Amino acid sequence: MSVPHMREASSSSSLQLCRVMRPDDANIMGNVHGGIILKMIEEAGGIVGTRHCNTLNGDRCWVALVRVEKTEFLFPVFIGEVVHVSAEISYTSKHSLEVQVKVVAENILTGMKKLANKAALWYVPCSLQNADKILEVPPIKYADAEQEEEGRKRYEAQKIERQGTKARLEEAIPPPPNPERHTVGFSQSSLIHLVGPSDCTIDDYVYGGVTMKLMDEVAGIVAARHCNTNIVTASVDAINFHRKIKKGCVVTVTGRLTFVSNKSMEIEVLVDAASLVDKEKGRYRAVSAFFTFISLDKDNKPLTVPPLKIEGEDEQRRSDEGKARYVQNKAKRLADKERRQ
Amino acid sequence: MSVPHMREASSSSSLQLCRVMRPDDANIMGNVHGGIILKMIEEAGGIVGTRHCNTLNGDRCWVALVRVEKTEFLFPVFIGEVVHVSAEISYTSKHSLEVQVKVVAENILTGMKKLANKAALWYVPCSLQNADKILEVPPIKYADAEQEEEGRKRYEAQKIERQGTKARLEEAIPPPPNPERHTVGFSQSSLIHLVGPSDCTIDDYVYGGVTMKLMDEVAGIVAARHCNTNIVTASVDAINFHRKIKKGCVVTVTGRLTFVSNKSMEIEVLVDAASLVDKEKGRYRAVSAFFTFISLDKDNKPLTVPPLKIEGEDEQRRSDEGKARYVQNKAKRLADKERRQ
Amino acid sequence: MSVPHMREASSSSSLQLCRVMRPDDANIMGNVHGGIILKMIEEAGGIVGTRHCNTLNGDRCWVALVRVEKTEFLFPVFIGEVVHVSAEISYTSKHSLEVQVKVVAENILTGMKKLANKAALWYVPCSLQNADKILEVPPIKYADAEQEEEGRKRYEAQKIERQGTKARLEEAIPPPPNPERHTVGFSQSSLIHLVGPSDCTIDDYVYGGVTMKLMDEVAGIVAARHCNTNIVTASVDAINFHRKIKKGCVVTVTGRLTFVSNKSMEIEVLVDAASLVDKEKGRYRAVSAFFTFISLDKDNKPLTVPPLKIEGEDEQRRSDEGKARYVQNKAKRLADKERRQ
Repeated sequence: MSVPHMREASSSSSLQLCRVMRPDDANIMGNVHGGIILKMIEEAGGIVGTRHCNTLNGDRCWVALVRVEKTEFLFPVFIGEVVHVSAEISYTSKHSLEVQVKVVAENILTGMKKLANKAALWYVPCSLQNADKILEVPPIKYADAEQEEEGRKRYEAQKIERQGTKARLEEAIPPPPNPERHTVGFSQSSLIHLVGPSDCTIDDYVYGGVTMKLMDEVAGIVAARHCNTNIVTASVDAINFHRKIKKGCVVTVTGRLTFVSNKSMEIEVLVDAASLVDKEKGRYRAVSAFFTFISLDKDNKPLTVPPLKIEGEDEQRRSDEGKARYVQNKAKRLADKERRQ
Repeated sequence: MSVPHMREASSSSSLQLCRVMRPDDANIMGNVHGGIILKMIEEAGGIVGTRHCNTLNGDRCWVALVRVEKTEFLFPVFIGEVVHVSAEISYTSKHSLEVQVKVVAENILTGMKKLANKAALWYVPCSLQNADKILEVPPIKYADAEQEEEGRKRYEAQKIERQGTKARLEEAIPPPPNPERHTVGFSQSSLIHLVGPSDCTIDDYVYGGVTMKLMDEVAGIVAARHCNTNIVTASVDAINFHRKIKKGCVVTVTGRLTFVSNKSMEIEVLVDAASLVDKEKGRYRAVSAFFTFISLDKDNKPLTVPPLKIEGEDEQRRSDEGKARYVQNKAKRLADKERRQ
Repeated sequence: MSVPHMREASSSSSLQLCRVMRPDDANIMGNVHGGIILKMIEEAGGIVGTRHCNTLNGDRCWVALVRVEKTEFLFPVFIGEVVHVSAEISYTSKHSLEVQVKVVAENILTGMKKLANKAALWYVPCSLQNADKILEVPPIKYADAEQEEEGRKRYEAQKIERQGTKARLEEAIPPPPNPERHTVGFSQSSLIHLVGPSDCTIDDYVYGGVTMKLMDEVAGIVAARHCNTNIVTASVDAINFHRKIKKGCVVTVTGRLTFVSNKSMEIEVLVDAASLVDKEKGRYRAVSAFFTFISLDKDNKPLTVPPLKIEGEDEQRRSDEGKARYVQNKAKRLADKERRQ
């Protein structure tokens, strides 16, 4: 398939970028994730827009994405293909600009090309001095009056639609179960991660280190939500890896506060895994552990941590168990210190 | 082929690895995440263990991490420092081995070194032919009988502890709200992502493309959970970026099925952002959009999608709205096709 | 704080780093990209050089890569292998230093090791207070006078060569591609990359290794487009880094075939940089080099490459120059071989 009107990469209002699709860009069947394509589209749009809005004198700026028009994925893209993204500024209003982007996937082994995607993005220029200040966009030249008129119509249409969606904004996904600050529920956090090729050993099982990194990430978010300061990992209790996790699984990592002392927070982290394609295997607990975080000030000195508001029997029991671990560790540290002296 | 002048790092039971800490390895205060250190520790342990267990004839194998002993982070590590991880096999039982790891952070500008971490990891060798088959570990030589005896004690102690934690395994974080298959609740998914430097423009706001990639990731997990097959993005409705997201925020991305046709799934994706350090700014809705996914067989041909079980008025309303969008898009596609002919 | 039992890797003028090769480091045939190896080589060189240049009192500094000597890829490296990079400072002049690097790939399942690569890199120390200020390099101790004399000869030779390449710098990249297969225009490729935080040193300049990885990526796409087979990097001619590239720049990397022999392709790669927000600095040539690729069959044996269709005087001249380099290299390899026997 031929793509006729690709321009030269060097003009100031258009741009081409390309990249080989790698294993981590795709699912286990080799299909490149739509999100990878969307990210490349936006990178091209952002570069061409920022470059254009800095051609005038005045404040330096970058462009913020405000809208992407409906876009269809016409053909699947595969690992090993080279994706070419070409972006061109197609309309400018006083304070916004439209970039049209074309995505072509090329199989460099067969020479075949396919038009994978077409998209239109709207950006506004924000001052580098003050991100809330919207700057003016230098006008582009149109081939003819008709081209300008069509752009103006697209501009008006998207303006109306953007107003319309503001209503839907407020509609909420059920809020977190327990919104009161400093409760266990307030800071409890979960992340999901789709296991990719780079997370795995040559036998397609997840490296233990990858799992521990995710656990630390969730525990860190829990700790930061609780005390809103700079937090760091102080220690990790023994971690047992009960079951292996295979490539293609979705991993759910959940962290919740169990016990808070004057200067530390203990967070229990649970890792569950489930196969997406293998219906028979249910969700199972793969790993669990306790992380301890401390809160630091600007000079990396420990800060006092807000106390934890305990609710219900289960939370109380977990807090008591956490306190026992805390006391035991403290005694052990003291004993080690004395022995060393 | 032999390489004559390799240093001691190539000895079969020890290993050193090192790497410069980069902005993406740290939080916004410059403190390297504990998870990055844990990941490097495990990489070193995995290499030294796998290498050792393949020194005998017989099945080739890799080593699976089964336990990490309690580990303390003695000093914070910063961006720009070089982290050295040295790993050594310190005990072998018939079917498992212990690796001791030391982490030293070096400031290459001042020459200062600090011991950041010490850890002990337990591995078992799994056959590459059959991951469920545990192989035998070649014994190491000990400096003296005392060293071996101490290792044996650590081995017995961890064995008992691993038994003990199996009980806690079954205790569950509250299960997903709606466990019945093919309901909206069954496939609903959320991920959280801590915004890092590489996600951001030069002005420290998240690239729109990074957000879209996360949205597509969640939508893909929802779609795969619903139909347990290979799924790909077919289209994305217009996406409006209501508010900017700043570096250091936590982004929560939630996806849920709204409407399922014979061969497609519509998933609503909502993006909420909240600052971890700035208490005043609450959680706010930053972006929302509808993604459409299709399910593909091995030859990339569309498969039939299981129908969606609707529960309650809200789900019904959202499904009706989704159906209206579906019908409208289909009509538009047909019109476009006719116009082109 | 002192760490008593650090091994020799902590000596100030040498370093070892290693890492498992992952799926994203390789092409779809499992061959690790030459660019990944080059990036590791440069990381090791940068650490050892920066550490050495900060052993004196005075301004703190980092070292900027200014030249990589011609390097050959002796054996292909595969996913799952552990790559060990050992770097050592081998010569110091007043304002520059040479690092020699050896790359060994280890198959930890079979225990086999192969010398994959040897390289020599030249660095200059730049003040952290003012990146344009070149500092003095602390002298190293030589084993004997002969060692020092050989280093001095290498130093003089590279100095002359670096002068020579400045002429080629100004040459512009030719107009858009020519669609006929096996012409230069058919396979010519460009990629652009927006420099992010993880690409940069602590002083916000792009690591030389990051640039080399992008150059290898483009050269690989050019080679694959020309012969539509599995291709690997065979060697890289001396690379001169004429100017530094700062964070926030857009880098354009262009590759085009210059000469094709029976079993190899020479690709010229040009790297241009431009700031997006600072328009006073125009686009400038930062780096240029010649990469040689070969085409491999399923058993990693070299395949015949389709001849290059030359069009016009410029292409003919570049091809003649490429042929001269090819003949010279071949003669040099033969002479080296004879000397070793």
